[in-house]
Amino acid sequence: MKTKISVIVWNEFQHERQSSAIAEIYPDGMHQVIAQALRVGDADLDVGTATLDQPEHGLSEERLAGCDVLVWWGHKAHDQVDDAIVDRVQKRVLEGMGLIVLHSGHFSKIFRRMMGTNCSLKWREADEKERVWVVEPSHPIAAGLGEYFELPYEEMYGERFDIPQPDSTVFISWFEGGEVFRSGCTWERGHGRIFYFRPGHEAYPTYYDANVQKVLNNAVRWAAPRVNIVDVCPNAQPLEPIAKKALNFAKVGILQSAKDIQ
Amino acid sequence: MKTKISVIVWNEFQHERQSSAIAEIYPDGMHQVIAQALRVGDADLDVGTATLDQPEHGLSEERLAGCDVLVWWGHKAHDQVDDAIVDRVQKRVLEGMGLIVLHSGHFSKIFRRMMGTNCSLKWREADEKERVWVVEPSHPIAAGLGEYFELPYEEMYGERFDIPQPDSTVFISWFEGGEVFRSGCTWERGHGRIFYFRPGHEAYPTYYDANVQKVLNNAVRWAAPRVNIVDVCPNAQPLEPIAKKALNFAKVGILQSAKDIQ
Amino acid sequence: MKTKISVIVWNEFQHERQSSAIAEIYPDGMHQVIAQALRVGDADLDVGTATLDQPEHGLSEERLAGCDVLVWWGHKAHDQVDDAIVDRVQKRVLEGMGLIVLHSGHFSKIFRRMMGTNCSLKWREADEKERVWVVEPSHPIAAGLGEYFELPYEEMYGERFDIPQPDSTVFISWFEGGEVFRSGCTWERGHGRIFYFRPGHEAYPTYYDANVQKVLNNAVRWAAPRVNIVDVCPNAQPLEPIAKKALNFAKVGILQSAKDIQ
Amino acid sequence: MKTKISVIVWNEFQHERQSSAIAEIYPDGMHQVIAQALRVGDADLDVGTATLDQPEHGLSEERLAGCDVLVWWGHKAHDQVDDAIVDRVQKRVLEGMGLIVLHSGHFSKIFRRMMGTNCSLKWREADEKERVWVVEPSHPIAAGLGEYFELPYEEMYGERFDIPQPDSTVFISWFEGGEVFRSGCTWERGHGRIFYFRPGHEAYPTYYDANVQKVLNNAVRWAAPRVNIVDVCPNAQPLEPIAKKALNFAKVGILQSAKDIQ
Repeated sequence: MKTKISVIVWNEFQHERQSSAIAEIYPDGMHQVIAQALRVGDADLDVGTATLDQPEHGLSEERLAGCDVLVWWGHKAHDQVDDAIVDRVQKRVLEGMGLIVLHSGHFSKIFRRMMGTNCSLKWREADEKERVWVVEPSHPIAAGLGEYFELPYEEMYGERFDIPQPDSTVFISWFEGGEVFRSGCTWERGHGRIFYFRPGHEAYPTYYDANVQKVLNNAVRWAAPRVNIVDVCPNAQPLEPIAKKALNFAKVGILQSAKDIQ
Repeated sequence: MKTKISVIVWNEFQHERQSSAIAEIYPDGMHQVIAQALRVGDADLDVGTATLDQPEHGLSEERLAGCDVLVWWGHKAHDQVDDAIVDRVQKRVLEGMGLIVLHSGHFSKIFRRMMGTNCSLKWREADEKERVWVVEPSHPIAAGLGEYFELPYEEMYGERFDIPQPDSTVFISWFEGGEVFRSGCTWERGHGRIFYFRPGHEAYPTYYDANVQKVLNNAVRWAAPRVNIVDVCPNAQPLEPIAKKALNFAKVGILQSAKDIQ
Repeated sequence: MKTKISVIVWNEFQHERQSSAIAEIYPDGMHQVIAQALRVGDADLDVGTATLDQPEHGLSEERLAGCDVLVWWGHKAHDQVDDAIVDRVQKRVLEGMGLIVLHSGHFSKIFRRMMGTNCSLKWREADEKERVWVVEPSHPIAAGLGEYFELPYEEMYGERFDIPQPDSTVFISWFEGGEVFRSGCTWERGHGRIFYFRPGHEAYPTYYDANVQKVLNNAVRWAAPRVNIVDVCPNAQPLEPIAKKALNFAKVGILQSAKDIQ
Repeated sequence: MKTKISVIVWNEFQHERQSSAIAEIYPDGMHQVIAQALRVGDADLDVGTATLDQPEHGLSEERLAGCDVLVWWGHKAHDQVDDAIVDRVQKRVLEGMGLIVLHSGHFSKIFRRMMGTNCSLKWREADEKERVWVVEPSHPIAAGLGEYFELPYEEMYGERFDIPQPDSTVFISWFEGGEVFRSGCTWERGHGRIFYFRPGHEAYPTYYDANVQKVLNNAVRWAAPRVNIVDVCPNAQPLEPIAKKALNFAKVGILQSAKDIQ
């Protein structure tokens, strides 16, 4: 592994260019604010960005090969993501690359691919207060947080969230309007680590929040690859002697029973 | 739910028609032997079959809608399975249908879809003895088995098996040639239950084995749907009053910091 | 297994005899209301009760031997439960008996014994509204419930709840005062199934609630034994020939290295 | 946390003083060989030892308070370990201290306490070959190992191993005599990490093996505390206003139904 953890922050980058209200919050796109949050402090990260409208969505074979952790924000353009790029990202996660999926990325092709489920949920946009409770304070992703943190305005996501049982449920959110949500969940798939983090609606300045930035910083470091193993399905030589056997299926009554079935 | 559990045994049905050695063991196809094993005894199952070469691979919308548990055997023709049918099966599993994946089905499109991983492993064809150990004797799939059962000749599958952590590892196999394998694994995905069962190489009469037939019978009943829930992602009305808020991002210094980043 | 599932509802039965306010809600004790809720409807349960002040707390060897599912309510008298009885209950759970732990039973000796953790949490008595969200609608314990149910007055329990990762988190609660809690959790230990269910403060009529009674009915049936296996740690005969080996530790440099360490 | 990880290697230290054959392999006790293996290489560990016959078994309040990871080997003297010391160790694990349990330590008081189960298994002493397969190559405990490693002579441990479902099953062993075993398992309990590692029979020089030493080195670093949190069960102030309610149980028909039950 390299000295620095190489991070790509991917954003579909549509809302920010289509809505003046959202552009006011994220004038250069959410990916720039997230990337900046990761560049602050320790210099152990090497942070770049990529967007939907770039060639290969900014995720060429070469670039992904050198990527340690991919952060993903998408919402209205999930369908415009090329299936071949989704295959490529999945392959890299299974080899060991980390994947951080943010907010509306729950419905991205790559998250649904990794989970195998619909990843659906309840939702509501109502300038609602969210309180994110830390359920696993010893998890590295929760390092430096208090017992909870609050976001004054967020979109609501409510259970049931259609995901496989997480390895760890780091955060559970309380919403002003009455719902709850597993807001920080981890999984391992292949040799890679995956973290889903709920907050981050485009209409609110969530990614400027200090606690959210701390979570993102923790998550990127947690998800950094431990190995890089290319998939194989090898024909293996025996390690112990295998007795030569006269295959006699009739002897054990098997062909007899086959005939009976006919 | 209906009174009987409706089961479809799906087989690609290629080896049996292309190899005389295999045809001798399974003259009408493996699916017929498996189906027959499920028809014996209690009359709580309604068992049919489907094969690759049928229209829609025998898995029309209508037929799948009425299916409670799908048993899947495939090997050399995984790529010939239509992606639209894979989508359809996945949708049904997530709604609650059970899925039993057998042996070389580890590389089927539907299993890889549900797992999100490569599902690769080590393998060897050497007329090898397999001893299947029961690790979770209280699991319904292990009901009626002893501490282990043996198969005199089987293909070897060895770890590492690239799957997500199972909910339950019911069986672990010992192989004569020196490997081990998690041979019976369960997962829940959406509202459906999935069971992977390792034994069942086409060149051996494994599906005539009494213990294997017991496992299949147990598994089909375990995987029967508990619910049938069609996926939605609803916009939810609040259950509690949500305070009207004057969104003032600048007040909390957020737009300030946005400008700083520029 | 017998035709009927044999259930014992255990209660420390202290609050109801020491507080007139609580006696007004549960004049014969909470155990009687819970038992009655389990006796209604299907006649597949055989329901009895036991209390702290009975000889052996009503849990003699013989009675426990015939018990399929034990329901446990305790709060102020946890310390008065005899360790020998806790040992006995643990042994039966590991053999296959189901255990349903209610509300303040989170701090009971038997629950802490089975979990291995402190089982601590946040709490508050404030006549607070609780909304219990169904996170796993396909779990048998959630059968027949809607997306959530509400309790108008309950004690608050908040995260972090110090438990091992549950096998299934069936319910998560939202509290009026701002907390969340994993209110319905399942585990398997040995051959037995365990369910923790949060609601049930003695000062409120929670066990008269129709949804709570449905959960209890579901849970008792879910936790019924699948097996009854007495623990052994056997010296096992080999199933395969083991080569005779001349143990020569020196040959592999081991005793050499032992001397180096000195 | 301190700069160095503080490790205590605990050994009952009985076999080595009672059997000349075992003393020949481990003249100063197994704990000295294990401690030495941890002292080699990186100087990030501060390694001490403790034994049963020391005052408080060498595990005073003060010493445990400064301990980051405790390694435990016991076999014939499990019962001689003072329950008060077991309480103390459990408390520290739940606060964040790591615990590595070796071989026959599966039956130690502390391991059974943390697991909540019997921790029983099959066993056989027959100078048997063990092949330890790496099932999770991306787990830090498997770092630097190949696909498997072999031990020429070991005691056999076979399934079923009566443990709660591990968070991660890092190793599964193949035994010459025909059994399999989950040989490397991890759990989190409270804020602490636990690793059980199977090899290490006192009659064989297992702890001199380079791969075994690598596993121990990896495990100690993996189990190092991430936090140190003392258990509390606080009465929490509300974070949101709680409506004043007139508790009227009769109104909702509850006391009515209480009378019906009588």
